[in-house]
Amino acid sequence: MRVAVAPVLDDHIVGAVTQVGAQLVDIENAQVVVWIGGPEGFPELPDGVEWVALSTAGVERFVDAGVLDDKRIWTNASGFYADGCAEHALALLLAGTRQVIASTRTRWAKDAVDPAVRTLRGSTVAIIGAGGIGRALTPMLKACGATVLAVNRTGTPVAGSDVTLSAERTDEAFARADHVVLAAPDTPDTRHLINDRTLALLKPHSWVINVARGPLVDQTALYRALTDGVIAGAGLDVTDPEPPSPDDPLFDLDNVVITPHVANPAGRLTVEMAPHLADNLRRFAAGERLASVLAVGRGY
Amino acid sequence: MRVAVAPVLDDHIVGAVTQVGAQLVDIENAQVVVWIGGPEGFPELPDGVEWVALSTAGVERFVDAGVLDDKRIWTNASGFYADGCAEHALALLLAGTRQVIASTRTRWAKDAVDPAVRTLRGSTVAIIGAGGIGRALTPMLKACGATVLAVNRTGTPVAGSDVTLSAERTDEAFARADHVVLAAPDTPDTRHLINDRTLALLKPHSWVINVARGPLVDQTALYRALTDGVIAGAGLDVTDPEPPSPDDPLFDLDNVVITPHVANPAGRLTVEMAPHLADNLRRFAAGERLASVLAVGRGY
Repeated sequence: MRVAVAPVLDDHIVGAVTQVGAQLVDIENAQVVVWIGGPEGFPELPDGVEWVALSTAGVERFVDAGVLDDKRIWTNASGFYADGCAEHALALLLAGTRQVIASTRTRWAKDAVDPAVRTLRGSTVAIIGAGGIGRALTPMLKACGATVLAVNRTGTPVAGSDVTLSAERTDEAFARADHVVLAAPDTPDTRHLINDRTLALLKPHSWVINVARGPLVDQTALYRALTDGVIAGAGLDVTDPEPPSPDDPLFDLDNVVITPHVANPAGRLTVEMAPHLADNLRRFAAGERLASVLAVGRGY
Repeated sequence: MRVAVAPVLDDHIVGAVTQVGAQLVDIENAQVVVWIGGPEGFPELPDGVEWVALSTAGVERFVDAGVLDDKRIWTNASGFYADGCAEHALALLLAGTRQVIASTRTRWAKDAVDPAVRTLRGSTVAIIGAGGIGRALTPMLKACGATVLAVNRTGTPVAGSDVTLSAERTDEAFARADHVVLAAPDTPDTRHLINDRTLALLKPHSWVINVARGPLVDQTALYRALTDGVIAGAGLDVTDPEPPSPDDPLFDLDNVVITPHVANPAGRLTVEMAPHLADNLRRFAAGERLASVLAVGRGY
């Protein structure tokens, strides 16, 4: 098996390639291209390339740049970074509900903070777009005593969740949830999933957490809901546009925390990807079905 | 069984008393006094009172006020609020390690925040004073992929933890831990458990979380360690003195969050206590051993 690693020979990825006994070659001679980066500088591929392994979970920018084609298999890193995303979602949710965020902005404001603290125990958390992140997040939420309501496109039951609903029933999930975690890909179907109408289905104590993609949230509607008391707060690791303007009004709200797209910190990307890539390379060598194959044409 | 509830007839507590078929009486005629509050205004007790159920987990202030005596059984609420404390400890730890705190103080400072984000997965978290809070926190940490190192006085294994050490081996725990959660009572043995020497055993990426009692931490030493880069940060729900002065220098540090003693928010105290009290009342009526009996004379 001849594998090219580009545009940089990352140590962890090279380690995965050599570990499975593959030969490291340049793109001209490769069957497999492992591409560690965005669409910028993506080369014309020779026809001999049978499979391109992208290193990102979201591939909108590759779609927009017209990089994907139907001449070969494309995989993304969907699910490879799920554990980190899930942990980050939990961190944002707990920082919100337990008033850690409010506390960073005050000095022992007990009279204001104490009545606002809520527990996840006995609460219902909806995970919208429950795939890899949802599977990773579910046991964390269960350990905190929450009821987990998973929503995914097909309604395929998510192991460990209490309820799984298909995407058509997202409104029901919002209506039943105390809090919402967004973990869906950015597609035409999910754009502005959080909007004036769906926010009104939530509760005054609800936190909305987004560790997926900024465009899932209509930020103007979110700002209104946050200032009008429609929901309690928002924890966002992604924004629209991204990066946000430094004078985005969301930064001025005490009930919002925006982390700078660090659910998967850059320094850990290839560490996390390497074992998944090694597994996929083994499957490729054995002629087995690859994990995380993109359905080119469906938008992601 | 004749039970007095004082100084206020809290609805949840009265509910627990009547639920077990006890008779609600005044203190003069009581076998059992359920005391919902601090030591201020605690009455002289008639000899007929066989058991006093205090509503707080820590009883230092009752000890200092000379309220406890050896004429009857005293119980505290140790363990009754463990779930909330554990969840709060997890919230503070994740808010620290995942840079949520840093993010509330910056606007999309990706270059600074991204390299500092750490995951609990694969990390070792030491729980110092692993009793009820430790038992509640352990499965939450395990769900996040951490190794749990429990330390308690006797070294009695904590269910679910990976390692349990007795208190004499606390230094070993510090040396092995990535992060430390303090959950011990405030006694002469635990005072300034976190000091210059023990802080030096920790790591530059370590977070110290205190959901127990302020005096466990030498705050001057902590301030030095936080400003000198000896450890990464601290999440404190308790301080010494408490409340802290509004110009306490810890408030000025970006790698500290202080929540105003809200791990058990006041509004939930009697809700949480009621089922535990009902259980203890049943035991008392049946002549069984009570839960959370204070060893009067050992300092707590």
